[in-house]
Amino acid sequence: MMNPMKALVFDGKLHLERSYPEPGIRPGWAKIRINSAGICRTDLELTKGYMGFKGALGHEFAGTVEDCGDKEWVGRRVVGEINAACRECEWCAVDMGRHCPDRTVLGIMNHDGCMAEYCALPTANLCTVPDNLPDDRAVFTEPVSAACEILEQVDVGKKDRCIVLGDGKLGILCAWALCTVSNDVTLVGRHESKLERARWGGLNTSPSSEKQPDASADIVVEATGSENGLAQALRLCRPRGVVVLKSTVAAGGELNLAPAVINEITLVGSRCGRFKDGLEMITKRDLPLNRLIDARYPLDEAEAAFEHAGRRGVLKILLEP
Amino acid sequence: MMNPMKALVFDGKLHLERSYPEPGIRPGWAKIRINSAGICRTDLELTKGYMGFKGALGHEFAGTVEDCGDKEWVGRRVVGEINAACRECEWCAVDMGRHCPDRTVLGIMNHDGCMAEYCALPTANLCTVPDNLPDDRAVFTEPVSAACEILEQVDVGKKDRCIVLGDGKLGILCAWALCTVSNDVTLVGRHESKLERARWGGLNTSPSSEKQPDASADIVVEATGSENGLAQALRLCRPRGVVVLKSTVAAGGELNLAPAVINEITLVGSRCGRFKDGLEMITKRDLPLNRLIDARYPLDEAEAAFEHAGRRGVLKILLEP
Repeated sequence: MMNPMKALVFDGKLHLERSYPEPGIRPGWAKIRINSAGICRTDLELTKGYMGFKGALGHEFAGTVEDCGDKEWVGRRVVGEINAACRECEWCAVDMGRHCPDRTVLGIMNHDGCMAEYCALPTANLCTVPDNLPDDRAVFTEPVSAACEILEQVDVGKKDRCIVLGDGKLGILCAWALCTVSNDVTLVGRHESKLERARWGGLNTSPSSEKQPDASADIVVEATGSENGLAQALRLCRPRGVVVLKSTVAAGGELNLAPAVINEITLVGSRCGRFKDGLEMITKRDLPLNRLIDARYPLDEAEAAFEHAGRRGVLKILLEP
Repeated sequence: MMNPMKALVFDGKLHLERSYPEPGIRPGWAKIRINSAGICRTDLELTKGYMGFKGALGHEFAGTVEDCGDKEWVGRRVVGEINAACRECEWCAVDMGRHCPDRTVLGIMNHDGCMAEYCALPTANLCTVPDNLPDDRAVFTEPVSAACEILEQVDVGKKDRCIVLGDGKLGILCAWALCTVSNDVTLVGRHESKLERARWGGLNTSPSSEKQPDASADIVVEATGSENGLAQALRLCRPRGVVVLKSTVAAGGELNLAPAVINEITLVGSRCGRFKDGLEMITKRDLPLNRLIDARYPLDEAEAAFEHAGRRGVLKILLEP
């Protein structure tokens, strides 16, 4: 018999459930008590039907291992990669479990998430959080790793002119990640309040109303989450340049890739990154992550937290069970 | 005063004009008598309004230099790169004139084409045709170079599983180009008669009705020229694989790039290639180009030739003025 726990559940309708079953653990898995969970744009999309997901939401967390066959893990503070892979296929063999065809994805695909008292993941997915790194920074490991993924996929040079479109959380984190490599990064967004929070290091910011020159960027990151983002990215990218697609939302709808063919632009689909890269960046760089946090809610008020996260101009909302 | 010549002209309507002005030549340019010109899918699109082009059509040719300031060129048999570049900008400085922002494009953009008695190009664009290479093979240099461009943009390995979607001329040439590098190339198309003509070297062919396994290809070339080609390419491509976009037509319309983000697929826009690469492949490899030729017409019958080129199942129609 599983014990009941509190969890923010989506089953066609979003609601806090007070007697949701605690996750069981299989050999090689750990049960993790959640210390902090972040609400992400993907969570908002899931409640609109994206991926057809049903279950406990949430894939950004910092927590403490409470139960595990391997007792070494018990009591450790951890973050965890969200793709639970089979560990046996050709993808898993080359450390690419995040593309394992049999994977489940925490809070996104066939796997209850972390907006709950507990979640479960394979220990192979876990990274120990350094003692000096507080939960409310460690909770950003998932999105920071997704931003770092760009640096793994694209060879970014110090002088490459980079433009990031979209001043949401992911856009800002991508801009910060690029800033650690290139000296010429501009974040373009609609919200002066968000752009102000984003200014860090050598990052330039620009309101969307100010037109960037056509074909001026070596690398453009599309992180607007809006349908016209890709057309704008293709316009800003130089011939033979790279457009990084960071948003599944923006990738739908009517669009014309003819400019990509004519200008021989490379479009790079980019999703999750390695947690060790994200955790290292959070630990070694003074990314001002606290500036992204708009509010903190207890799990009991998760529904209100979710509503807050969907408001215009809001960046990160944390749930602290 | 320019002399009049015959030319197949599009000015909102396609017609053979008998007193179209011969092209003049500027310093550094050559006037070329056309020996053979190919009709390409792009030509058919141009007559439907693509690029808003008006003028003499045609960008695939083999010809003989008739007039040039540099007398060395006169009498030489040549083919010519279609992008006439400024030779001064940063693109031209790195031998990338085909992306020069001030370029004109033979028969496609602000530049009268080669379905005429003469065309004009900068001598910098010309490649001398070897004596033993007949005009009706040399005329394929432009599309073969476009196919070779894939090999320049993508690192294709001997064991990479490649699928080419589309059994049109460009699809077949792309498949042949890939066959010179990879041992595992499959051409997928709708027309058994075209697939039969395409079988060469180690190339596998498959009718579209036969489903290829999902996520099975390392490299997929989209050359269908149809709107659902890209969705199919994304389905066949493995995570982290490469989809080459060869068709501007297929790139329009409603489409969803979310699978490219989720599977971190790279899409590579690919257009024109270097003529020296194409000419070398035609000269050194026994590509059975003659199989692609359905008919030859004199320039006087260019309108009928154009109508023939648009028929279902037809590959290459040549104009031999």
